[in-house]
Amino acid sequence: MSPYEKKHNESVSDDVVWHHSTVTHADRVQLKQQKPVVLWFTGLSGSGKSTIANAVESKLLSLGKHSYLLDGDNVRHGLNKDLGFSDEDRVENIRRIGEVAKLFVDSGAIVLTAFISPFISDRQQARALVEKGEFLEVFIDTPLAICEQRDPKGLYKKARAGEIKHFTGIDSAYEAPEQPEIHVHTDNLSVDECAEFVVARLEAMGYLTAEERKFQEDNSHAL
Amino acid sequence: MSPYEKKHNESVSDDVVWHHSTVTHADRVQLKQQKPVVLWFTGLSGSGKSTIANAVESKLLSLGKHSYLLDGDNVRHGLNKDLGFSDEDRVENIRRIGEVAKLFVDSGAIVLTAFISPFISDRQQARALVEKGEFLEVFIDTPLAICEQRDPKGLYKKARAGEIKHFTGIDSAYEAPEQPEIHVHTDNLSVDECAEFVVARLEAMGYLTAEERKFQEDNSHAL
Repeated sequence: MSPYEKKHNESVSDDVVWHHSTVTHADRVQLKQQKPVVLWFTGLSGSGKSTIANAVESKLLSLGKHSYLLDGDNVRHGLNKDLGFSDEDRVENIRRIGEVAKLFVDSGAIVLTAFISPFISDRQQARALVEKGEFLEVFIDTPLAICEQRDPKGLYKKARAGEIKHFTGIDSAYEAPEQPEIHVHTDNLSVDECAEFVVARLEAMGYLTAEERKFQEDNSHAL
Repeated sequence: MSPYEKKHNESVSDDVVWHHSTVTHADRVQLKQQKPVVLWFTGLSGSGKSTIANAVESKLLSLGKHSYLLDGDNVRHGLNKDLGFSDEDRVENIRRIGEVAKLFVDSGAIVLTAFISPFISDRQQARALVEKGEFLEVFIDTPLAICEQRDPKGLYKKARAGEIKHFTGIDSAYEAPEQPEIHVHTDNLSVDECAEFVVARLEAMGYLTAEERKFQEDNSHAL
């Protein structure tokens, strides 16, 4: 019995139960022929998280895999539009993203999230919501100097000028993952090569087939 | 260009755009061979919303369709666990469910939601989040007397005794849908027959094929 089924049976619905023909997590995995997982992209502003995540999604689509990308575009202006940038709201922002990622995993999807998510504790909280093997940290490791040189929206410039406070990498810490399951050193790689690397890792770890596969400890850490 | 693509291009990512190979809503529709939609179940406590929604999901699965059910089980204890039952929190509860349903529709899924959602204004708000034709109100129309007779969790009894305040149908209004797209009169029907009716309506309205189909005005209202 999967943890999802167990949970479903334990909890109390707000409706009468005549007979309950619940579709299980296993049913959805079977239909989608993949192992549902959260790919939690993390990295500095300008590191390439969203761009690489998009490219990964394209490759997954071409393999017939079912994925969905949560990023600032579809979350900040919708579900989390009531949240600002206070410490409390940032924590709540990541909490909700983690909870929605969990729902997508339950639905059978490979869900990609692309947020700076600079703090280890927040990422740990998101990881704790799902089962072991259902959360892979994808560290988009681009040096600060390169991110700042790109500065696509002029945010680093503003942060250096003191116009933006608590900017990650400038006057607020970025806590790099210590043991990311997928560590992408973007230096000298194209977006396509970065995405290819992520997909190859997913394939090697058995996420692109429905086959139930015991998660290998020695595959679970950085390359 | 779908509204999703337009939105995606208009909004600003927090990352540098080298080149953006965005997977579109149309791509996901094509992969899943169905028309993404929110099936918003509404009805009294004990009316059979969750039970019928589960049965609908089973039938969709057997047709190879990709669905996901949001209900009290997976939402109240996760994403919305910070919310109580004040008027304000009830509105926020439904708002978040609507936003998450929108994300699932964007992902290409048929998403079912099973909450009492007694107020027209809240359901209208959820409907307004998605495109025309992407939201179908499914009214599980079971008379109060029958719901109260079933009273699977003894809630009506407690409400009648004044132990629960603001209970829908007793001392808080249930605003029935005026023109639900799918109106299920549950009297004298089995769960299976109710679910079959919903699926037949979906099929008739063209939701179970990927084919882009202009939503017919005259199909959009109650039977």
